[in-house]
Amino acid sequence: MNGAESLVRTLLGGGVEVCFANPGTSEMHFVAALDRIDGMRCVLCLFEGVVTGAADGYGRMAEKPAATLLHLGPGLANGLANLHNARRAATPIVNIVGDHATYHRQHDTPLTSDIETAARPFSNWVRTSGSARAVASDAAEAIVVARTPPGQIATLILPADTAWNPAEAPAAVPNVPARAQVAERAVTEAVRMLRSGARTALLLAGSVLRAHGLQMADRIAAATGARLLVGNSNARVERGAGRVAAESIPYVVDQAVAALADLQQLILVGATPPTAFFAYPNKPSVLTPADCRLHVLARHDEDAVQALEWLVDAVGARAHTPKAAAYQPPTLASGAITLDALGQSIAALIPEQAIVVDESVTSGRSFLRSSRSSHPHDWLKNMGGSIGFGLPVATGAAIACPDRKVLCLEADGSGMYTLQALWTHAREGLDVTTVVFSNRSYAILRNELANVQAGKPGRKALDMLDLGRPDLNWTGLARSMGVEAGRATDMDTFNRELQAGLRSKGPYLIEVVL
Amino acid sequence: MNGAESLVRTLLGGGVEVCFANPGTSEMHFVAALDRIDGMRCVLCLFEGVVTGAADGYGRMAEKPAATLLHLGPGLANGLANLHNARRAATPIVNIVGDHATYHRQHDTPLTSDIETAARPFSNWVRTSGSARAVASDAAEAIVVARTPPGQIATLILPADTAWNPAEAPAAVPNVPARAQVAERAVTEAVRMLRSGARTALLLAGSVLRAHGLQMADRIAAATGARLLVGNSNARVERGAGRVAAESIPYVVDQAVAALADLQQLILVGATPPTAFFAYPNKPSVLTPADCRLHVLARHDEDAVQALEWLVDAVGARAHTPKAAAYQPPTLASGAITLDALGQSIAALIPEQAIVVDESVTSGRSFLRSSRSSHPHDWLKNMGGSIGFGLPVATGAAIACPDRKVLCLEADGSGMYTLQALWTHAREGLDVTTVVFSNRSYAILRNELANVQAGKPGRKALDMLDLGRPDLNWTGLARSMGVEAGRATDMDTFNRELQAGLRSKGPYLIEVVL
Repeated sequence: MNGAESLVRTLLGGGVEVCFANPGTSEMHFVAALDRIDGMRCVLCLFEGVVTGAADGYGRMAEKPAATLLHLGPGLANGLANLHNARRAATPIVNIVGDHATYHRQHDTPLTSDIETAARPFSNWVRTSGSARAVASDAAEAIVVARTPPGQIATLILPADTAWNPAEAPAAVPNVPARAQVAERAVTEAVRMLRSGARTALLLAGSVLRAHGLQMADRIAAATGARLLVGNSNARVERGAGRVAAESIPYVVDQAVAALADLQQLILVGATPPTAFFAYPNKPSVLTPADCRLHVLARHDEDAVQALEWLVDAVGARAHTPKAAAYQPPTLASGAITLDALGQSIAALIPEQAIVVDESVTSGRSFLRSSRSSHPHDWLKNMGGSIGFGLPVATGAAIACPDRKVLCLEADGSGMYTLQALWTHAREGLDVTTVVFSNRSYAILRNELANVQAGKPGRKALDMLDLGRPDLNWTGLARSMGVEAGRATDMDTFNRELQAGLRSKGPYLIEVVL
Repeated sequence: MNGAESLVRTLLGGGVEVCFANPGTSEMHFVAALDRIDGMRCVLCLFEGVVTGAADGYGRMAEKPAATLLHLGPGLANGLANLHNARRAATPIVNIVGDHATYHRQHDTPLTSDIETAARPFSNWVRTSGSARAVASDAAEAIVVARTPPGQIATLILPADTAWNPAEAPAAVPNVPARAQVAERAVTEAVRMLRSGARTALLLAGSVLRAHGLQMADRIAAATGARLLVGNSNARVERGAGRVAAESIPYVVDQAVAALADLQQLILVGATPPTAFFAYPNKPSVLTPADCRLHVLARHDEDAVQALEWLVDAVGARAHTPKAAAYQPPTLASGAITLDALGQSIAALIPEQAIVVDESVTSGRSFLRSSRSSHPHDWLKNMGGSIGFGLPVATGAAIACPDRKVLCLEADGSGMYTLQALWTHAREGLDVTTVVFSNRSYAILRNELANVQAGKPGRKALDMLDLGRPDLNWTGLARSMGVEAGRATDMDTFNRELQAGLRSKGPYLIEVVL
């Protein structure tokens, strides 16, 4: 057994069953080992940003890590932006990067770089295996790190000779630490705050945003009058019919400040304090009022669901029946295309247990409003703010959940970052319907240019925000990568196209011309 | 004047006239300043790997830096791979990265990351401006660093508030240090070696690979019997009719070792010792024989051309007439498409003073042989080995030299990494003809899998190297981004398509189906 084989067997033993890959020469022995050993699904992506984004989507839905396989420092570099997003989403990933053979690095050949340093800002753990015999135990540790709550990025760097030199047996993967229970005083203090009569909200994030956690939160809110808040972006929310909906804090600073203006107390349940996404001149970074008291009920690595259970009992809310939405989708919209009409039709058609990967940026906001009573679905958003997230995450989600439809809501500017994912949709026959909102601009930046008070923009500035001249042809791009596609310029066509996409069992892309 | 204006005026004063950009919210004040101040050409790229690659192509041809404008840590991350290539090519770049406002970073909002650490492995210099008043002098220093021989990557990180807060005047850019002259003893020793009677070669790299430096080297070779060698990849070589050709060290290790087997002495002229690109089991990393003596005539930051001038005089070679190739291109090839036929037709048609950006990997090797007597041209190759270099570098080269035709030889696997560059070709109307060698595989990796002795590949391994299933449609991809395109499946069609591309004054892409 060589180091590469000990790696693959250790990964399989630790429950890592999918490898998203774009390998090169230094990873050829790993590729050969993946080939020889049954059980690992290998998914080729034509750019590393697709690799790491797919691992993010997979990890969010499978609740266990996929492996990546990247080619030296630059291959890692290409994957860092979506690794950043995954880290912010607390997605477990075993991020494997090949390097030159240990004895070759001294020659500083063209592809040499300091991989550890490049990885560190975007990883929770970084290790370079020193020898083939160390690969198995290093991989086992990487799996444990990745699976440690709330989920982490473990980057394992493997010099080429650690793959081809002899190794011993694969390593057994130790038990993963469970989520820590919150301290009793954290619950006691929350109870005191909820009974104080002050205007109080729970801000929910992370693991509590599934159906059960939201029901617990709803019981608490009903019994105490507290508001239920969620941030603008969450890694995975269970929404729609049968689920409890919480109030979303707006992205726009002034709106967010207004929404939180009367809060006297905020209890953080797996969440961090609400802050502005960006700084703007003469606007606050902190969104809560200056005299609002913040209390951490559960950190994001603690067992926030259990904390809510305790809180339910402590405030006597166990008997309350959570007020979940009934299935009552909107009707299909018709006529001219508007963002509201699109949100309405999507909400009307979204299938049961769909996974909605939402990188629609400015265009998709109406979907959130329209879909409260749609079929139950999971809703995945970008937690790191680095665009190019949607198409890759849809890739990984579809591989994690082959029996569920993935609906990818994608902005044109963001979609262009990692459009290579469409080829993987086609190759793997993934059940992903993508809607591209083609407004031919970085529309959010038009707002942001105003928000930062930089004055009235001229031609050169507007050109930097404009994706027209020439217009991108998204149906052409999709078809050129093997994905069936249609274009909609009115709502009736859009409805037909979306129905066609959702009916198909493979990838489909709809370009909506706004 | 705010910090952003002081930046733009300092850049313009330092001769930085082009900014390749993909800005975001934190860079909006820079965008506004670029808008208000005349003189800076702003080029929008739809992915940051295109931004940094374009700056590489621009810097190589303009011999001065372009600026980039990137959006926080993930925007930088997306640009790092082509920054790596540029650093290895010693291209001057002023790499500007926006960050959150200084007072906002403490909140660790979604897009926050450690930008300095991420930049360091791929930069020669990294600085974060601490205030708006520091931006001008920091930018001036960045320009000096970028222009310091042989050319460097200067990464300047600008928190958003350093853009919008008040600043003073722009800073004057200090003089750039000239290339250091080599020590006299380095020349004396080279003379001694060349006269020793031992089998000797000069290995040339960097600035000596222009017409004049190659002529000097040829004189020395003629007078002393030394061989003239160049590495497999060089940042910029002047080739073709009227130019002296040197012998290229093969990429394949066994071939390279054989080519250098009888060398007793090697004189490095701006070059580093020849090494294998990758390590392979049981093959050497160092390509020269164990007893070959290496001598550094000039480091890559020293004035290697002047060193050759001195050497010419010292060995009495001034009177020799360099043996340059006459213009005698091959005829057009016809019949079935083969790599040799493609090389022949390209060599037949390449226009005078074309800039050839070569990322053809396995497919373009015959071009090198066929084009020795073609019209004179510049030949730019990837110095860092990170694929996705070609289309962006062609973008920047075309902007640096609007009167010259750019011919981009691109492999399909590499081209997919940064295909977004085609949109910029279209928007800017760049005079770039791209030939995509569509072999539907990472063909080099099929060889490499054999080279690393990983055994006979099975289906899963071959799938990781295969770009088919589905086939990429490159003409469709190009047209969908506004670039005219044609497909060739035989040589006569290829010849017609290449002629059409070269005749057009705008972007054109030819997909060659291999």
